[in-house]
Amino acid sequence: MFAKDVYVRRRQTLIDSMKAQGADGIAIFVGNVDSPAQYRDNCYKFRQDSCWLYYFGIDEPRYAAVIDLDGGEETIFADDVDIDDIIWMGPMPSVASVAAGVGVANSAPYGALDDAVARARALGRRVHFLPASRYYNAMKLGSLLGIDPYETFSKGKAGCPAASAEMVRAVVEMRLVKEDIEVEELDRACTLGQQMHTVARQGVVVGVKEQEIVGAMEALTLAKGWGVSFATILTQHGEIFHCHSHENLIEPGKLLVIDAGLETNDHYASDFTRTYPTGGKFTPKQRDIYQIVYECNEHAFDITRPGTAYLDVHLSVARKMLQGLSDLGLVRGDIDGMVEAGIAGLFMPHGLGHNMGMDVHDMEDLGENIVGYGPGQKRSAQLGLGSLRMARPLVPGNVVTDEPGIYFIPDLIKQWKREGTDKGYVNYGKLESYYDFGGIRLEDDVLITTGGARRLGANRLPIAPDDVEAAMAADKA
Amino acid sequence: MFAKDVYVRRRQTLIDSMKAQGADGIAIFVGNVDSPAQYRDNCYKFRQDSCWLYYFGIDEPRYAAVIDLDGGEETIFADDVDIDDIIWMGPMPSVASVAAGVGVANSAPYGALDDAVARARALGRRVHFLPASRYYNAMKLGSLLGIDPYETFSKGKAGCPAASAEMVRAVVEMRLVKEDIEVEELDRACTLGQQMHTVARQGVVVGVKEQEIVGAMEALTLAKGWGVSFATILTQHGEIFHCHSHENLIEPGKLLVIDAGLETNDHYASDFTRTYPTGGKFTPKQRDIYQIVYECNEHAFDITRPGTAYLDVHLSVARKMLQGLSDLGLVRGDIDGMVEAGIAGLFMPHGLGHNMGMDVHDMEDLGENIVGYGPGQKRSAQLGLGSLRMARPLVPGNVVTDEPGIYFIPDLIKQWKREGTDKGYVNYGKLESYYDFGGIRLEDDVLITTGGARRLGANRLPIAPDDVEAAMAADKA
Repeated sequence: MFAKDVYVRRRQTLIDSMKAQGADGIAIFVGNVDSPAQYRDNCYKFRQDSCWLYYFGIDEPRYAAVIDLDGGEETIFADDVDIDDIIWMGPMPSVASVAAGVGVANSAPYGALDDAVARARALGRRVHFLPASRYYNAMKLGSLLGIDPYETFSKGKAGCPAASAEMVRAVVEMRLVKEDIEVEELDRACTLGQQMHTVARQGVVVGVKEQEIVGAMEALTLAKGWGVSFATILTQHGEIFHCHSHENLIEPGKLLVIDAGLETNDHYASDFTRTYPTGGKFTPKQRDIYQIVYECNEHAFDITRPGTAYLDVHLSVARKMLQGLSDLGLVRGDIDGMVEAGIAGLFMPHGLGHNMGMDVHDMEDLGENIVGYGPGQKRSAQLGLGSLRMARPLVPGNVVTDEPGIYFIPDLIKQWKREGTDKGYVNYGKLESYYDFGGIRLEDDVLITTGGARRLGANRLPIAPDDVEAAMAADKA
Repeated sequence: MFAKDVYVRRRQTLIDSMKAQGADGIAIFVGNVDSPAQYRDNCYKFRQDSCWLYYFGIDEPRYAAVIDLDGGEETIFADDVDIDDIIWMGPMPSVASVAAGVGVANSAPYGALDDAVARARALGRRVHFLPASRYYNAMKLGSLLGIDPYETFSKGKAGCPAASAEMVRAVVEMRLVKEDIEVEELDRACTLGQQMHTVARQGVVVGVKEQEIVGAMEALTLAKGWGVSFATILTQHGEIFHCHSHENLIEPGKLLVIDAGLETNDHYASDFTRTYPTGGKFTPKQRDIYQIVYECNEHAFDITRPGTAYLDVHLSVARKMLQGLSDLGLVRGDIDGMVEAGIAGLFMPHGLGHNMGMDVHDMEDLGENIVGYGPGQKRSAQLGLGSLRMARPLVPGNVVTDEPGIYFIPDLIKQWKREGTDKGYVNYGKLESYYDFGGIRLEDDVLITTGGARRLGANRLPIAPDDVEAAMAADKA
């Protein structure tokens, strides 16, 4: 949690930005409640809503707030504890003192939120809200506003039409550019994330169950931070992007993709990916593909700077990747034509990167297009490029991931062959010997600076193929 | 996951039991979906609904089922994957084959559940459902049945009036008595849970941050199982029952309460508590109280057997505890009178134990009173006894926790003194020197056998005060 004046300043900026867009009425924030894992009182570890944390900082469940845009009055809604609560949860500061601690003068019981919103609606005032991320929040917003709870969720990439466009725009503008105190937290998250990945790499031993490595690496997220910033991907099937099964034993001759991040106690994320040869040495075939992905990762970082659109960085990486695949004979023909035809999407059906901050895909529920696309930028429908979550012209303070990958997805290759999607650019004959290859992804987290860019975290994880092999040899020595 | 015939048999027993109670119509099961942690696509580790797992075994999100009680027809509702899903999640077996794997002949898309229920309702057939534990399930049930989602939640200890009494009763009867294959899983959970606690004990070193110990112990839950069976309690403020803060450093001379459990990959829980002197040696004052709690734990186990009501075990422990506190001069007067007046509740404001199974408080959302109280047993309103979750006459196959504790809660003591709740039994003068004592709880997991009872897990954690000190000395050697 930051100092009180941080939250006071952020809320004032929010109000100013919304009013500059012509907004009036009230803005409501519904913080998260505990989320049941089994029965209702047995909950997952509490994770506060990121927008709530950004503007109010209070990391406790069942808080809400109303900001009056016209009068400037701010009220926090939460319940004080009684003796039963004290027995189970211990003595707690009063809601009034918690609110005062983040510069909010007024407080009221949680149930009074309903009255406050009903009063505003009865007067015909506008009620601004952000899209819901959780079912509870959707139910609460639905009942406050008298609309179907599902209306409060994002409707895919375009965001949530029922939510306040002015409020969303104001929040996105602010959270896209990280403050210095946020960069410090992100550096901390990344340094710990690098330690977490080092523990993982040291655990890569043929015969070990994947789940054992996950346990060892996630231990660090719990000992040093809140936990993982997303569900750990640790798989010998890198071609499956969100493979969360960890049941297999480490087999010789495979590639192990580890995509994992740590969230700090103050809720800032890291997100790194490395791909390891399970036996410690790449086969020549693995090394050829790895070298291309490695060079793409380096190339992306080299051209990432203020004023460059991340869309163009993605496209430049696609070109470099296709050149490498062409050199190996997996594709053939004119590189420009291939980029135009979206051939890179067959091998990398995801975007080069995304914004990162308190959420690992920062602000995703505010609407991917609103967060990641600037005025005049239109999202592509192509496979791969269409999944690019950050396309904007970069400005200092942006934090993005740089995560190129090459995958061989048999079902996808067969579909393209069947449907002629490749327009003749793909050498299917040669590709067949890659059906059991798996996939490779290499990811760093990058801060845009005034002079260019800086990789976050104190110690970059080994990434050059020789360095990876040397590190794995040293791990075993 | 168990063999197909286990699920076929269980569902048949459920149907038979519901029909024997006169139920007709359809019974619906809504499995869990992924639960968002940050934004909607960044979810907590998936945990399936326990009742769904018990009857259908399928550990995947977004499954539902309908059982036709009259015709006996069973249908599973879930969606097959398309090429986008394959890229992100990998190839998956068809829903039809998954359903067949648990003996269900029919399958349909997830959306068809709405039609199936609407059809039954249009025909005036009864629709049986179990109480919801999560907000999504409440929203889904609410929309299927045309009722307020909040109506589908348990309303406190009495359960959920809108849910099917026959279905709840049938499920409770079955899940209260663990099958041999379940006992095997519970033994596995408990053995791993004991390993987890051993790691924790070894980490108890003055100057270490509590969170570091939590990370080390939870590593084992992730490496060997699904994770924790509930949010870990590890605190030097044992008098706060659900203290989930782990920010403090281990201080000398304190008592550290560790209440933590592991859930296996197949979703059976363990739940153990030990209390350690932070420096490795109890002070005489700590040892006096510890000895009472230790003897209560042993006494409870000694008298736990088929035919005895766990309510009577609780009351017998209360008597023993009050005798011990009387010997120390903290209470005074007639023990029978004290038990009657509920004086034990001042020191142990919780019940002796609860049922344990797939849920660590097994089936809590089906209604605590229905699960834990048999015909003719009425729940007390007294502090402590009123929180007893398992009062029933014990039968072989029941699994309960044995977890006496003594706590000194200054706010509660002051309230009793102010309001005269103790009826003169309490020696407040002497109690004052215990305001900074904290609390002690000692918990084992117990299976009721035909001959008596057996503690679950391969290696009971050291519990006698000398054994605890010896183990801590050996840890450091």
